Amino acid sequence: MEKDQANTQLNRLQVPAGIRWNADGLIPAVVQDVETREVLMLAYMNETALRLTLEEGRAWYYSRSRQTLWRKGETSGHTQKILDLRFDCDQDALLLTVEQSGMACHENYFSCFHYRTETAGFAKVGQPERRPEPDLGKVLRDLAEVIRSRREQRPEGAYTTYLFNQGLDKILKKVGEESAEVIIAAKNQAPAEIRYEVSDLLYHLLVMLEERGVALEEVACELRQRRK
Amino acid sequence: MEKDQANTQLNRLQVPAGIRWNADGLIPAVVQDVETREVLMLAYMNETALRLTLEEGRAWYYSRSRQTLWRKGETSGHTQKILDLRFDCDQDALLLTVEQSGMACHENYFSCFHYRTETAGFAKVGQPERRPEPDLGKVLRDLAEVIRSRREQRPEGAYTTYLFNQGLDKILKKVGEESAEVIIAAKNQAPAEIRYEVSDLLYHLLVMLEERGVALEEVACELRQRRK
Repeated sequence: MEKDQANTQLNRLQVPAGIRWNADGLIPAVVQDVETREVLMLAYMNETALRLTLEEGRAWYYSRSRQTLWRKGETSGHTQKILDLRFDCDQDALLLTVEQSGMACHENYFSCFHYRTETAGFAKVGQPERRPEPDLGKVLRDLAEVIRSRREQRPEGAYTTYLFNQGLDKILKKVGEESAEVIIAAKNQAPAEIRYEVSDLLYHLLVMLEERGVALEEVACELRQRRK
Repeated sequence: MEKDQANTQLNRLQVPAGIRWNADGLIPAVVQDVETREVLMLAYMNETALRLTLEEGRAWYYSRSRQTLWRKGETSGHTQKILDLRFDCDQDALLLTVEQSGMACHENYFSCFHYRTETAGFAKVGQPERRPEPDLGKVLRDLAEVIRSRREQRPEGAYTTYLFNQGLDKILKKVGEESAEVIIAAKNQAPAEIRYEVSDLLYHLLVMLEERGVALEEVACELRQRRK
């Protein structure tokens, strides 16, 4: 929902006048995946590529080797939906935040930055044909965002609405119940059950934090000190 | 600990022979903060800057406007400790993972990419003189890593060692105890207490997941489906 808004805003944008194009009329664009926050690639745009990117909300670049415009994913299908576009303080570099479908790298890695320095040259790193696991921090933030909007809008039929309508005591009863279920799952030595029950407990903890007005970041600050 | 290892490895590296320097003998370097995963800046290196960076484990760049080498943080004190250095598939761009001290941008923002596109030009985004909140996902991953090493090495006197030595039942008793403390803190309407107890519960959940061999990423996958 948040993403669609970002995209709609983007579609109304013009190519800004202040950009400092290089001698070839290009600007480098750093591309970052919204979900995993991996830096996917560094590519170049000319003015037309930037205009098309802003118009379509999908990434277009200019190929320096082929001297031609290309739409990312044109042949591979691995398009990049633009969620955010920023300039740096010198106005000579772009940062695109994208939703990457499939692999960003034509060598079939999620990110083009999959070569590590080695004394003798380069060694590949990373795993082809596989996206990184979802980032837990991002998943928790997204879920907290959904929970917040449920509290504000109380859509009918949503379980989270039910919890907020019932109030703190009900939420805390669920925290107790879910932690008991985590304990039972762990005793059963059932990994799938553990995953499921820990997720349920985390969800209800997020609902409690929202109800009490405690931000996830505050918990992160506190937790960072735990190094026992 | 993991970081120091990365740094020691880096110090033994030479400038790789396969780099494709541009016509000015430079290569663009994307710089990403290890903790927040923010893209901080795009800068350029010549061969000397890259060699100094590899030798010192601190970022050196080449200023195109001043036509001179500069050590990041030379005047501001805001240095960048290098934790990882990668090349892209074309070998004409670098990705540095750094520990950023202070602000990366000379305009006193954490990242140089703090201008958002607007129809009429550029508008600043972000907050100066303030680092972003710690990333909860990163904090949880780091903590899980510490817990894993405690399980493997069992250092004497560490609380986590004690838990693993006592075994699953003890860990689960703590999960029960901490969830009760979360409930009490929430009833007390005490934000600081809530932060503290939720952190304690999360820590013990991580210990349980490690003991049971369930990865954080598996929980993230499961949790991503919770959109009630």
